[in-house]
Amino acid sequence: MQGAIGELIQLLARLPGVGERTAMRLAFHILSSEPEYAASLGRTLETLHERIKRCELCGNFGEHARCDVCLDPRRDSRSVCVVARVQDLLAIERTAGFRGRYHVLHALLAPLDGIGADRLPVQPLIERIGSEGVEEIILATPLSVDGEATSMYLAQLLRPLSVRVTRIASGVPHGGDLEFTDQITLGRAFDGRREL
Amino acid sequence: MQGAIGELIQLLARLPGVGERTAMRLAFHILSSEPEYAASLGRTLETLHERIKRCELCGNFGEHARCDVCLDPRRDSRSVCVVARVQDLLAIERTAGFRGRYHVLHALLAPLDGIGADRLPVQPLIERIGSEGVEEIILATPLSVDGEATSMYLAQLLRPLSVRVTRIASGVPHGGDLEFTDQITLGRAFDGRREL
Repeated sequence: MQGAIGELIQLLARLPGVGERTAMRLAFHILSSEPEYAASLGRTLETLHERIKRCELCGNFGEHARCDVCLDPRRDSRSVCVVARVQDLLAIERTAGFRGRYHVLHALLAPLDGIGADRLPVQPLIERIGSEGVEEIILATPLSVDGEATSMYLAQLLRPLSVRVTRIASGVPHGGDLEFTDQITLGRAFDGRREL
Repeated sequence: MQGAIGELIQLLARLPGVGERTAMRLAFHILSSEPEYAASLGRTLETLHERIKRCELCGNFGEHARCDVCLDPRRDSRSVCVVARVQDLLAIERTAGFRGRYHVLHALLAPLDGIGADRLPVQPLIERIGSEGVEEIILATPLSVDGEATSMYLAQLLRPLSVRVTRIASGVPHGGDLEFTDQITLGRAFDGRREL
């Protein structure tokens, strides 16, 4: 399809989980909706990257130089949780169990995709240890191959510094059935067993 | 979530098949993509309803006063296919079997939703019979309750005029198993049986 509809379909099809068919359905839905909807979605997208900045301290998204978490004086700066993405930060915030601050990498080591250590904001993290009096760095990158590699790389780098480096636990998830748990997870659950 | 990201999530969540979780995933994907992507998607959406018009003859979408089908002199104006939506028109075009023109209703009778006959572009259709020399009107509204009601309503209205009014066939779809075909479809397949 050509013209404006074709353009829209192609752009929508670049979204994750949206194929050409879905993009077409979305495009026609937008066309059939009241014009104000397309206009406001358009304006929001066009100004998105001007309005949303990365926090100069931790990399979290926000509308100011520093994000809400870094500006909140009630957050405990002695504990910094390292995450790969802002979505992971939000997931941790939803648990309401962590009162420290964050450090968002916006990347994971992936040598095969050409993403090396230079893409990780490690130097700013090291500087924060001194400037904010960080005592513990909790590595909360995903439990995937890339997430584990990044976590191990960071642990190696941070260990010589006077800071406690920890990794979130890996094991059978809440409500999980042992019968249907994969071997690696079950192995980790045993390795990480705790005294009761 | 507040601010620009929150706005974006709310707007995306109004798309069909997109819940709050998916909207969030899409929003963060857009935020993490290069800014030019959000900007061009934004521009396309903002100008969409200015660029895309409904064809003054048939209601199809296009970038000019008349759509590509109506402007194509090779199309046979003696046969007009009535469809509910532009998507249906495109589906018929993909079969490459129909060489006539179209009439897009952009609505179906749905009394329960307050959509009555006044919402159907019937008068323009009747005018086309005379002005374009239409000999057959093929009713290709969906085989749903609303589609059938609309088709019957149009047939009643058009029959007194000097035009042949037909309805697309309903029956077991290509590759369909009789065992798993619903009763109504199977009944229609029998009613619509043809001499071999």
